[in-house]
Amino acid sequence: MLIQNTSSSLADTLRHRRQKLASLINFPAILWSGSSNPRNFPANRFPFRASSNFLYFAGLPLQNAVMRLEGGKLELFIDDPQPGSALWHGEMPTREEIAQKMGADGARPMAELELWVENAATIAVQDAATWTQQSQLLNRWVLPQNPPQGIDLELTKAIASLRLVHDEEALIELRKAAAVSVEAHIAGMAATPNARREAEVRAAMEGVIIAHNMTTAYNSIVTVHGEVLHNEQYHHYLQPGDLLLADVGAETGMGWAADITRTWPVSGKFSSTQRDIYNVVLAAHDACIAKIYPGVEYREIHLLAANVIAEGLVDLGILQGNPQDLVEIDAHALFFPHGIGHLLGLDVHDMEDLGDLAGYEEGRKRSDRFGLGYLRLNRPLRPGMLVTIEPGFYQVPAILNDPQLRSKYQNVVNWERLSEFSDVRGIRIEDDVLVTETGSEVLTAALPNHANTIEDLVGC
Amino acid sequence: MLIQNTSSSLADTLRHRRQKLASLINFPAILWSGSSNPRNFPANRFPFRASSNFLYFAGLPLQNAVMRLEGGKLELFIDDPQPGSALWHGEMPTREEIAQKMGADGARPMAELELWVENAATIAVQDAATWTQQSQLLNRWVLPQNPPQGIDLELTKAIASLRLVHDEEALIELRKAAAVSVEAHIAGMAATPNARREAEVRAAMEGVIIAHNMTTAYNSIVTVHGEVLHNEQYHHYLQPGDLLLADVGAETGMGWAADITRTWPVSGKFSSTQRDIYNVVLAAHDACIAKIYPGVEYREIHLLAANVIAEGLVDLGILQGNPQDLVEIDAHALFFPHGIGHLLGLDVHDMEDLGDLAGYEEGRKRSDRFGLGYLRLNRPLRPGMLVTIEPGFYQVPAILNDPQLRSKYQNVVNWERLSEFSDVRGIRIEDDVLVTETGSEVLTAALPNHANTIEDLVGC
Repeated sequence: MLIQNTSSSLADTLRHRRQKLASLINFPAILWSGSSNPRNFPANRFPFRASSNFLYFAGLPLQNAVMRLEGGKLELFIDDPQPGSALWHGEMPTREEIAQKMGADGARPMAELELWVENAATIAVQDAATWTQQSQLLNRWVLPQNPPQGIDLELTKAIASLRLVHDEEALIELRKAAAVSVEAHIAGMAATPNARREAEVRAAMEGVIIAHNMTTAYNSIVTVHGEVLHNEQYHHYLQPGDLLLADVGAETGMGWAADITRTWPVSGKFSSTQRDIYNVVLAAHDACIAKIYPGVEYREIHLLAANVIAEGLVDLGILQGNPQDLVEIDAHALFFPHGIGHLLGLDVHDMEDLGDLAGYEEGRKRSDRFGLGYLRLNRPLRPGMLVTIEPGFYQVPAILNDPQLRSKYQNVVNWERLSEFSDVRGIRIEDDVLVTETGSEVLTAALPNHANTIEDLVGC
Repeated sequence: MLIQNTSSSLADTLRHRRQKLASLINFPAILWSGSSNPRNFPANRFPFRASSNFLYFAGLPLQNAVMRLEGGKLELFIDDPQPGSALWHGEMPTREEIAQKMGADGARPMAELELWVENAATIAVQDAATWTQQSQLLNRWVLPQNPPQGIDLELTKAIASLRLVHDEEALIELRKAAAVSVEAHIAGMAATPNARREAEVRAAMEGVIIAHNMTTAYNSIVTVHGEVLHNEQYHHYLQPGDLLLADVGAETGMGWAADITRTWPVSGKFSSTQRDIYNVVLAAHDACIAKIYPGVEYREIHLLAANVIAEGLVDLGILQGNPQDLVEIDAHALFFPHGIGHLLGLDVHDMEDLGDLAGYEEGRKRSDRFGLGYLRLNRPLRPGMLVTIEPGFYQVPAILNDPQLRSKYQNVVNWERLSEFSDVRGIRIEDDVLVTETGSEVLTAALPNHANTIEDLVGC
């Protein structure tokens, strides 16, 4: 556990967040930080990641800690280090020192928590040791997979409404995560000419993140098989004609994330087919960002991407028909089967542990349309919201070889023309876009995305 | 999940391991592979690490898989990929394909497992989702923190006896892990002159491991505060007079680990006090390795290290008295408070999930002596055992400032002389040593450990 440089402006921000919560609920809330998970034996553990809902109000990644919030007051529950722990872990701050850093109003040993749980709401954390403790102390099932009910639901909605709009301290952290992620991508491009395998490019990228004393916000995707959307393998050898798709983002020590994807040619030169499709994806990316301003429905941004991609694929002769009609029958989703993006904050899919409570405006549900069902965000945009914009083009065998889809879209796809683009398996371009009062700001804008500039950065 | 290049010699080895187990127990054994843990939301998970006891017999890091072993026969239980998973994860091998790679005698969906559990022994895995499933299916508590009983204990002892002695396939993997770890340490030394913070050296080291498509076997220690034995912070700036202690090891895709520590001067030059203590630790290291041969008690190796360190500290005027007498009163443990090493294999502390069942010969228990209690291994050495040898010298404030210890050892420590060594906070030198028929082989011998050579590798 690292406690250092907690700025007074952070302490003020944390107090402000707690006061805002107090204005939204009239019952106590108890938030657990969680504990680390053992890897292959109890003393060899995965790195600790505090629950985001705890971090948002606590600011410190404390293990095995609990905070009770009521009326803007914070009571911290945490045990002092065990006697003897100083031998292995060094001198740790005491409960009182931690409480002071957080601006807590009180600090108590964990054993006292049971006296403070009455009528309190909570949110389930992810690790089983902790949600078991939550369930026992609150005397009801608190399970991460169960939708919250009653006051837990009220608390969840209140926290989601706060975390949807980022304050200045959050943005400071989010910008740091973005800057390091930009540097990681530039390092990945530069490392490609001398890399034999995907793993070597991944090493160059994650090396930058580790060197900044940050962690990856999610398991990196660094692959010549971008058509496998959640590819977490890194063993393929790089071939000169391959495109390398890298979806890599950093997370700051306080837990704030970035999420960037770039796709570049291993050889340093896009083929003409690769460049054509790349430019379609980039056109969608640019069109979407240009349309981001307060009040716009994120769903419309998604449909705009679908339209630009459909239009581009019609221009290339891959799709046949009127682009808008094609989008209406979800033909774009043959090649762009996921949503245009998602919320970004403390989590890379921000607040996805709350189900669709954060991503979907109250009363809205997921569409059952092939081209809309994977949309993770369906709300009107508001200043302070941070979203990803990540259009893509993929030739996913599971889609393109699906007999039902193939027959449904038989006449709108020019399959012969498509076969000329076989060196384009997967392209995605993803940036992190902050909604501002007057439009948007791309937090990851320092990372080039034009084909020519990308080629220069790979620079063979 | 990655399934490739399962060599036929591996399949033979796996079959051989299963047959050996069959010769030791006369009841069925069911081993679970485990599942990954969610990080901050369900879709964002920590990397999967299969249970080592499963890996030993299965060879493949399968998620959510179970194997039933009886009379040398293997029945695999695993579900085929969900429909639709190919979109996100690509085409996955089918149950039958996986079973074939493993040389399984049968393969069934997970739902059938409940028909096969009668009278079966098991070993608890680390993740709660899986040990809950183990407990439910076997209708008894199977908890990682509970010592095994009855046939579970018999199974545990049988597996420990097999895993204690490494076969050729295991050694192939262990040598790979060692080679990559050696490369990582050399990269760390080379990166030090241009590094500002510990994190940058860590990045250089872990970058090598990631580039080889391996993972770290444990959370790296890369610190200028080596006196904090389990230091997992990387934020300190490097100062010219600092020693940097790096305890970093790789783990192969099949789960086999290496574990290496080196300590080097940030400036590229040891001070004379640093060099003096370094040479005491190195003398202990070399003396221990020279004494490793079949039949020797590992406890004697530990006591040898204690003696060499005590002798060296007497020579330097830090301790006063007869070295053997000093060891008998545990005076060495003021500066060398941990054990000389541990078993190494699929786990960095091999089989520590089994408590002391693997580390301690039947009938032996941990000592309550200050200088022996942390010894993780207390057995006579046998050919095929792999152990670490890792003597160290630390000035741990929690020990040296402890009033009781300080008064007990008042007259054997020359505190004034000790104060001249204040630039030596922590030194450890650790290698991985295989017991052979005729002595030992240092698997990590390619990494230099002499002070002058270390200085050359840092090379300022």
